[in-house]
Amino acid sequence: MTPNKHAVALASGGIDSSTAMAIAIKQGFLIHALSFDYGQRHRCELDAAKNVVRSLGIEDHVIAPIDLRAFGGSALTDDIDVPKNRDISRISDGIPVTYVPARNTIFLSFALGWCEILKAQDIFLGVNAIDYSGYPDCRPEFLEAYEHLANLATKAGVEGSSRYRIHAPLLQMSKAEIIRAGSEAGVDFALTHSCYDPSPEGLACGACDSCILRRKGFEETTIPDPTRYRS
Amino acid sequence: MTPNKHAVALASGGIDSSTAMAIAIKQGFLIHALSFDYGQRHRCELDAAKNVVRSLGIEDHVIAPIDLRAFGGSALTDDIDVPKNRDISRISDGIPVTYVPARNTIFLSFALGWCEILKAQDIFLGVNAIDYSGYPDCRPEFLEAYEHLANLATKAGVEGSSRYRIHAPLLQMSKAEIIRAGSEAGVDFALTHSCYDPSPEGLACGACDSCILRRKGFEETTIPDPTRYRS
Repeated sequence: MTPNKHAVALASGGIDSSTAMAIAIKQGFLIHALSFDYGQRHRCELDAAKNVVRSLGIEDHVIAPIDLRAFGGSALTDDIDVPKNRDISRISDGIPVTYVPARNTIFLSFALGWCEILKAQDIFLGVNAIDYSGYPDCRPEFLEAYEHLANLATKAGVEGSSRYRIHAPLLQMSKAEIIRAGSEAGVDFALTHSCYDPSPEGLACGACDSCILRRKGFEETTIPDPTRYRS
Repeated sequence: MTPNKHAVALASGGIDSSTAMAIAIKQGFLIHALSFDYGQRHRCELDAAKNVVRSLGIEDHVIAPIDLRAFGGSALTDDIDVPKNRDISRISDGIPVTYVPARNTIFLSFALGWCEILKAQDIFLGVNAIDYSGYPDCRPEFLEAYEHLANLATKAGVEGSSRYRIHAPLLQMSKAEIIRAGSEAGVDFALTHSCYDPSPEGLACGACDSCILRRKGFEETTIPDPTRYRS
């Protein structure tokens, strides 16, 4: 076991983070998976994260409780209307209902803290700049700035004994390319969850932005879509 | 009320963050105070934060629970020997027992998230580079990198409708200068807490690094030290 090969990966239970984790494993990293319980409206996201992590053979999975409801941001966990059946060209305009203020900044800061404890120096996350190009914290500039910060924020980074790297292997991929890459890397997409408005049993609505992007992604590949839709 | 004048300030209950908050108020900011319950060994830190915030007339105070114990970093909340009676020249070598990995990075990311919700663009924190010069995340380079990141991480920052600023008014002050500045700005130091190893009643030990720096700071001013010491 090379100490340098440990990495922390963000695991949301969706297609993107699952694929990023599988790619990291293929690259030889020993993954420590990190999920957040921030009062998601749907617990099936966390169940999906657990199942994906287990299916990839990852033994270390922390679900960090961070209660952002304290800040009174209603968009996090309160009742919101989930937009349905929007035209795909309009999807990237909107902020998904699962948006958490400064989300990637907060998630990466926990990943960095865990890296310090593990003496790891690599962080994987599944952001991509294609499907949500409007997102500030999914852009290459943001990730570069974070990498710079990480190397200033920590003792190891400053001393040069560690050089932190933020890996976003999906950054320039379309959803179809991600699905192909994930499939090749061994992701079982039947375990992943994307829907913003699932049934109580966890069936996907098929009409929210996330379902539309996911379905379109599978349609552009020859990989069968294992999603269980409500309708 | 000018919308631009809202600011988030980190409040730990100690001399530094209390002084930074008081300075921010003097500068005309309407402060939203942010503390973290990360399983501190001594609840009196949070009690001190509450009392200081209230005494400064700040009406909005969020104590965000973040459970870093999930990462298994024993230095956070477990039983550790608190070094006592160390020579003052050796204090800045060591990492305080209250050290949290990637601490300021995590704390600032929550402050940034709250700023997004409040539509505020100013963050105050009480770091200073003099007494703990060895700390990576107390250096001006770190704070500049964070400011750069904040402006890339958020929609408002990218659109230019907000320009985030990280304020560290104590950065170049000695402890004595901080105590003078805090006193002028109206901090009641009797409410603050610094000791790493207080008695069950919250009396300061007088011998840990934090007590030594605090006591030395007061000794270098004409301001009476209101700390209640055990011995």
